[in-house]
Amino acid sequence: MYYFFTMANLRVPGPTPLLPKVLSSLSQQMISHRGKGYEKVHAEVVSGLQYFYQTKNPIYLLTASGTAGLETAVVNFFSPGDTVVFFTCGEFGNRWSEIARSFKLNVTQVKFDEGTRVRKEVVKKTLSGMKNVAGVFITHNETGTGVLNNIFEITPIVKAHPSKPLLLVDSVSALGGVNLPMDKLGVDVLVSASQKAWMASPGMAMVAVSPYAWEKHQKSTMPRYYFDLTKYEKFAQKNQTPATPAVSVLYSLQSALELMKKEGREKVFKRHIDLRDYFRGEVKKLGLKLVVDDKDASPTVTSIYPPQGVDEKVWRDLLKSKYNQILAGGMGGLKGKIVRVAHMGSAVKSDLEQVLVAFRKSLKEL
Amino acid sequence: MYYFFTMANLRVPGPTPLLPKVLSSLSQQMISHRGKGYEKVHAEVVSGLQYFYQTKNPIYLLTASGTAGLETAVVNFFSPGDTVVFFTCGEFGNRWSEIARSFKLNVTQVKFDEGTRVRKEVVKKTLSGMKNVAGVFITHNETGTGVLNNIFEITPIVKAHPSKPLLLVDSVSALGGVNLPMDKLGVDVLVSASQKAWMASPGMAMVAVSPYAWEKHQKSTMPRYYFDLTKYEKFAQKNQTPATPAVSVLYSLQSALELMKKEGREKVFKRHIDLRDYFRGEVKKLGLKLVVDDKDASPTVTSIYPPQGVDEKVWRDLLKSKYNQILAGGMGGLKGKIVRVAHMGSAVKSDLEQVLVAFRKSLKEL
Repeated sequence: MYYFFTMANLRVPGPTPLLPKVLSSLSQQMISHRGKGYEKVHAEVVSGLQYFYQTKNPIYLLTASGTAGLETAVVNFFSPGDTVVFFTCGEFGNRWSEIARSFKLNVTQVKFDEGTRVRKEVVKKTLSGMKNVAGVFITHNETGTGVLNNIFEITPIVKAHPSKPLLLVDSVSALGGVNLPMDKLGVDVLVSASQKAWMASPGMAMVAVSPYAWEKHQKSTMPRYYFDLTKYEKFAQKNQTPATPAVSVLYSLQSALELMKKEGREKVFKRHIDLRDYFRGEVKKLGLKLVVDDKDASPTVTSIYPPQGVDEKVWRDLLKSKYNQILAGGMGGLKGKIVRVAHMGSAVKSDLEQVLVAFRKSLKEL
Repeated sequence: MYYFFTMANLRVPGPTPLLPKVLSSLSQQMISHRGKGYEKVHAEVVSGLQYFYQTKNPIYLLTASGTAGLETAVVNFFSPGDTVVFFTCGEFGNRWSEIARSFKLNVTQVKFDEGTRVRKEVVKKTLSGMKNVAGVFITHNETGTGVLNNIFEITPIVKAHPSKPLLLVDSVSALGGVNLPMDKLGVDVLVSASQKAWMASPGMAMVAVSPYAWEKHQKSTMPRYYFDLTKYEKFAQKNQTPATPAVSVLYSLQSALELMKKEGREKVFKRHIDLRDYFRGEVKKLGLKLVVDDKDASPTVTSIYPPQGVDEKVWRDLLKSKYNQILAGGMGGLKGKIVRVAHMGSAVKSDLEQVLVAFRKSLKEL
């Protein structure tokens, strides 16, 4: 009898499950995106985001996926041929560097093994050997492996470089659930997306921009139109967007932010850390092997090797078909080798207990 | 007593009001965008769109606004320096040509007066004097004025040109409500967006691509990533998208398409024409002046001059504050000069009767 697995337990790293209040917010009727009603929603969303980004910088709302937020960061602050450095440790770092190459930036990519984090010593050494670095790009939370990079220790190294590079951070799958104080650290461009720790519907990328990055923006000659932040800034003055925004998605983000603010920033961050620690502890007890060391582990997603001798896909299919646990597989070099379990956004302990019960039962069956 | 104006009558040309069934479809829970459940939604949406596009071509679903659909058409089929021609008659034609200039296409723009349509004689004459035209761009329905261009008479002229240009059509604000048989005509790239005649939530651009355009795509050297259709085609094979799609928006489009298919293509098209003819007739009876001649008038949006001596904004504000009619103002050269009333998507006669009652009463008061 699988009496408490009647509803699918969606544990992929985005889209994450929506709480009932957020779900019902999506059914609000359309409004004009040029009217007061919309402007109120827009202003509330930006202000809620600023609280979690811990910033006074403007945050631009782009109707698009997280990947488009990463492209926005590439095309707004540089010109073709500019030298930029990517420190990567997985698929989403690779993707961001690929975007930069597509737009003819001069890319240096320093790769760390999948499952490990970017090491500050290497950042220091790499940058010390370079001149005229226009930008340093780093993934805060590598969704492909479940690694959290330490932006706190990397930022001062980047900021100390004589060529004064911009620091651009992809926190698509962590921000909202993990502490990353943009202003205190001095991050210049910070990208996130609605369907991850923000526990809202997918379709909105959010890009915060420092005054220093805005200076660079004004000199950038990169070809762009839909992602041109000059247009977003002009319309942001009236709490609007240049083109028609995904109004329903914004409703969901407004509703989710309200719940998150009620819980409180520090409590939300602590809940994510607690969930990570609880889940990793229990997974170890089951004798399963974790991909990432404790010190590098993400508070939002955990990667696990399948039981020895068992195919990842066979295990994941069983967990889905019999126990209704919807988990993700690996990406890039880890494709077919790992299972990923998300615990971000609306996640609570019982969501992970379900996964663990399913793990336990499936291990006996395999 | 304004007893039947208690709910706002949203008559801007997008977002358009959502029917109850479509609204409730938005509240469905999230699913993995890499699972069978999503693939079913995706496949149904594409098939429903193909029925209204009247095409067998692939239709790519981009999580983005209509403007991004226009950018997708610019960056996927050409290379910097290619010669392209825009025939424009308003703000959205201007916008599209601006996108092409941003990406370094060699743009010839032939402008027609706002409120008039593109004339085939001029298209013929312009093209006959040109060599190596890589693409011809035209707005099907100019939302800024309420003009419907005649793609039926323009297509053969474009197709007869010796340099075999691509024909790219923006039908963001008409397709779904107006007959434009893509395959029969031979349109190469056809762009639309979810929040207009499709009566769905905003956030999805839909781009259909002919085999001939796909040949050109493979030679295009334009910088792009998020809008790169090679990636969309690869994922479309499994009814997926390269990045996380706006799942809720797709739910709404799936639900709206189901209702539209039930009504039937021909009936939907006829309803839009009937609404236009009814509304224009009644507006004339009130002594108000229409911006566009009958023969050029759009089936989805109608532009009207304010009563003589009355400021457009004053009239529109009165219609809104006292009668709850949410109408749009003018754009570009017509900003502050006209009022626009949309009758697309879910619109029925009683929606326009409300507008007309408000017109009648406000005229007495002004």
